[in-house]
Order: sequence, then C-alpha cells, then structure tokens
Amino acid sequence: MKTTVPLLDKITHFIVKRKGKQIRPMFVFLSAKLAGEISESTYNAASLIELLHTATLVHDDVVDDAYERRGFFSLNALWKNKIAVLVGDFLLSRGLLLAVDNGEYRLLQLVSNAVREMSEGELLQIEKTRKLNIDESVYFEIIRQKTATLIAACCASGVASVTNDEELIQKAHQFGEKTGIAFQIKDDLFDYGEGENIGKPTGIDIKEKKTTLPLIYALNNASDSERKRIIRKVKNHKEDPKIIQEVVDYVLASGGIEYAHDVMMRYKDEALAVLNEFPESPARNSLRDLVEFTVNRKK
Amino acid sequence: MKTTVPLLDKITHFIVKRKGKQIRPMFVFLSAKLAGEISESTYNAASLIELLHTATLVHDDVVDDAYERRGFFSLNALWKNKIAVLVGDFLLSRGLLLAVDNGEYRLLQLVSNAVREMSEGELLQIEKTRKLNIDESVYFEIIRQKTATLIAACCASGVASVTNDEELIQKAHQFGEKTGIAFQIKDDLFDYGEGENIGKPTGIDIKEKKTTLPLIYALNNASDSERKRIIRKVKNHKEDPKIIQEVVDYVLASGGIEYAHDVMMRYKDEALAVLNEFPESPARNSLRDLVEFTVNRKK
Repeated sequence: MKTTVPLLDKITHFIVKRKGKQIRPMFVFLSAKLAGEISESTYNAASLIELLHTATLVHDDVVDDAYERRGFFSLNALWKNKIAVLVGDFLLSRGLLLAVDNGEYRLLQLVSNAVREMSEGELLQIEKTRKLNIDESVYFEIIRQKTATLIAACCASGVASVTNDEELIQKAHQFGEKTGIAFQIKDDLFDYGEGENIGKPTGIDIKEKKTTLPLIYALNNASDSERKRIIRKVKNHKEDPKIIQEVVDYVLASGGIEYAHDVMMRYKDEALAVLNEFPESPARNSLRDLVEFTVNRKK
Repeated sequence: MKTTVPLLDKITHFIVKRKGKQIRPMFVFLSAKLAGEISESTYNAASLIELLHTATLVHDDVVDDAYERRGFFSLNALWKNKIAVLVGDFLLSRGLLLAVDNGEYRLLQLVSNAVREMSEGELLQIEKTRKLNIDESVYFEIIRQKTATLIAACCASGVASVTNDEELIQKAHQFGEKTGIAFQIKDDLFDYGEGENIGKPTGIDIKEKKTTLPLIYALNNASDSERKRIIRKVKNHKEDPKIIQEVVDYVLASGGIEYAHDVMMRYKDEALAVLNEFPESPARNSLRDLVEFTVNRKK
C-alpha cells in the first residue's frame, strides 16, 4: 500500500489501524476451505474484497455525511469530502490492480458485478426513501443489492479461488446472498433496539426516513387512516424523540419487529440449508457459527 | 446503461446529453488505426475510458465543490454529493464490467493503473498545494499522474486493441504521456489569460492556491524577499481581484508564462517525434492535428 504521497500513506495507516471486524475476509477464507485448500488466489480475493469494502465505507461516509466510523472520526470528518472521495477511488484501484496483475479474472467478474449492484442498491434506496412508499419486494431488492451482493461475492470468490466448478461457485454465492440478507435485516432491527433494549430505539433509520422491514410490515397491516398518521409522523418528526418513540411503539405493537425477526431466521435457515450441501468439515462448522453470529450479534 | 433504478437512468441520460469533447475516445480510435484496423476491442477500450473519465469528472465535482460542468449544473449541484459519489462508482463499475465480460485484460491492466495514478496525483496536488511549496519536478509528477496517465492509457489501449506488440503499445503510451503533459500545461496557462487576453487572468488556480508552472518559474527566479512577498499574496489574497492581478502581473513580468509556453511546446515536439516513429498514415496525420489542437485550443 506504500505510495509516493505522504498524506495518502498517513491516511491508509489510519485506516489499517482502525480496521473493522473483517467479517468479509473470513467468509472468503472459510468458503475457500469448503471446496479445497487456501491458495494465493484466496489471499488475492480476500484482499481485493476488503479493499473494496473499505473504499465503499469511505465513500458511504461522504454519502451519509457521517462523522464517525468504527468508533473514531471518519475520514471525511478529519480530511474533508474531497480527500475521502479520492482515497476511496485509490483503494478501489489498488484492489483492482492486485487482481489484474495476478490474472484473477473470475474474481474480477464477481467483484465488478458486486460493485455495480451495490451502487445501484444505494441509489434505489435513496430514490425510494425519498418517496416513503416502499413495499417488501423493493426492500428485499435494496438489501440484496447493497449488502447481500458483497457477501455473496466473498463466498463465491473464496470457492472460485480453489476450483473452477461453476456449480459450487454458484452454490456459495447463494449461501452468501441469503446470509447477507439475514445480516442486513439484523442491522435494520438494531434501529428498534436489541435484547432487553427492544423498544428503546436508536431510531437512526427513522430519522433518515429509511423504511425497513419492521415499519413496512406495520404499515402494510395498518388501516388506511392509521397508515397515513404514521407516515405523517415519519415524514415530519423533526428529530423529536417523542415522535420517533411513538413510531417505534406502533411498530412494536403491530408485531413488526417479531415479523422481521422471523423473516431473518428464515433466511438464516435457508442459508444453512445451502451450506449443508457442502461436505461436512471444520470450515463448514465455522461458517455455520459465522451465520449464527450475524443473527445473534449485539452490534 | 439501462438499469432498474429510474433515478439512475435519469441521471445517466442527463450525463449523455451533456457529453464533452470526447477527446479521449478520439485518442483511442486514432491510436488503434496507427497499428491496425479498429476492432470490437477498440470500442470496448473507448467506452471503458470514457465511462471512467466521466466517473472521474463526477467525483471531481464533489472534490472541487464545483457547481458547473460542461456549461451546465454539475451532478452534485443538482442531486447532492451523496448521489454524485454513487453515480461515479456506478459508472466506473459499468466500465469495468464491460471490460471484464469481454475478457479485455490488457485493457484492464492499463486502465486500473491509470485510475491509481490519477487518484494519487490528485492527492499529491492537495498535499503539496496546502504547503504552497512545490518545485518543478513535483509539478511534473502531479500533472503526469493526474492528466497525462489517462491520455497515455487511451493511446496504449487503442494500440493494444489491435496488436499484442508490447513495443508499439509502450510507444503509444509514451506519445500519450507527452501529449497529456502538454495538454495540462495548456490548461494551467489559461489561468493567466490566453491570446490577446494574456495577463487578464481567470485566476482560478491562484484563488485555490494551486501553484502551476508559470508561478513556479517566477518564484524560482525571484529574490528571497520577493518570493516571500508573492507567496504571502497568494496565501492571503482573500479572493481580492487586485491582489490576484498583482500576482499575475508579477508572473508575466518575470517571464513565467513564456517559459511555461516553451516547455509545453517542447513536450508537444517530443510527442510528435514519438508519433513519427509510427508509419505515415491518415490516422497519424489526424493525431498530429489533435496534438496541435491541444496546444492551440482557446478553451
């Protein structure tokens, strides 16, 4: 990652020190072991995807005007948007070069597709959010594109790093996609509180007028007048914690959180069913644990 | 370019309608004809590079907080930064997919390298600009990375689309790089006025404290006390047109504009010398005209 630009070296050092859970590289390595032995290609896949994911986070922070990331100031808070955009582009190109220079073409295909879907998914979310009308199928399409696609690419490229068997690669892709959807539903549930804190919302999505599964369910099961009343509250909450709490209480009372939890568990079960088509192995057990972690994690 | 996201389709339509000079695809096509017949690979190269260039412009506008692009509002002025970042990422991934899906791996190599150099160059410029100390060699490194690299990639990938002859590809790369440097010096000269308007500056670079070749030459040939005086003016101009005019007058009187013009012409001549190593052909003549255009254009 060394460059000729001291500022850039300082920033990449900053990023590496504050690395995240690195859950995506874990999916790459464990998926590779489902189908063979970890190879240099597996390392290439894991590196490209973590670089790409980091680039996306850096760009997301510009997108969201976020001033915190992984418990510390975000790049754009410290160095302004312009630098964050350029650093994101730099990280992405470093990842691409790694793949291109090593002739990892199947990997490139899997990953470029993921990048396209991710930007489409984010844009679809922005467009739909603005209108505040969103049905379940749109919600699933958004989370499939913006989150599940990359985890699917992790699993597929892990397997592709050790075998050319397209059927196995597709199976790993399916497993990753279902896991990714469960992962995102879990993320969306945090907005409504977690464990003993259920009903004590962080309310960030509601503040940003993002309609996620619990709210969608509640609205779909409301009477016309109730639906209008709740939509009005979401649209005009003006960050008033009382109004946000009212929306959360409504969602809780209508069973939206329970419903979203059930759907998440169904995706988890489907993911594990696909996983079980691979032969039993320590890697398969670890992947099962990783899936359980995604739906049980506390943050 | 059709997607499932109406907002995205609207934006790409908007971009296509306001297309620029498309000088980069011209370099691709003409370079291909230097070495053979235009093929489908040539179209792939031209499309990828124009998509990439457009993505870079969209991101640049975020980077520069620019509210105008190609005579019309920029994307970020109309749709906000967040959307501009995502659309840039989308355009880039569409270009990559085009290349990956068509197995254009040499093209991918040339282009990923260019993307890395371009983001490094922009970041280097931001870093150096901040310190306002910059010597000629840093200036040339910045413009080589941020501008010349992409034109070099155009010419190299044009040739690579019709032949595997690495020597020819490298020669085209060299030709493009020298042309690109001349192109950027010309751009930087506009800041000091052009033709009969010489000395009537647009002064945008000075306002942004970007030190380009004319000013660097003037500072390098000033006495210590004069240099300090001018640097103070550039640092503290507060957008006062009188102060900016003083800096421009100083650069003009010290021969900085003449000097930059001479250097530009030297790069142009070197570019044409490399070009002349290719056999005589209508494409070679057109490329010569294109190089002449880059140094003689009025905007």
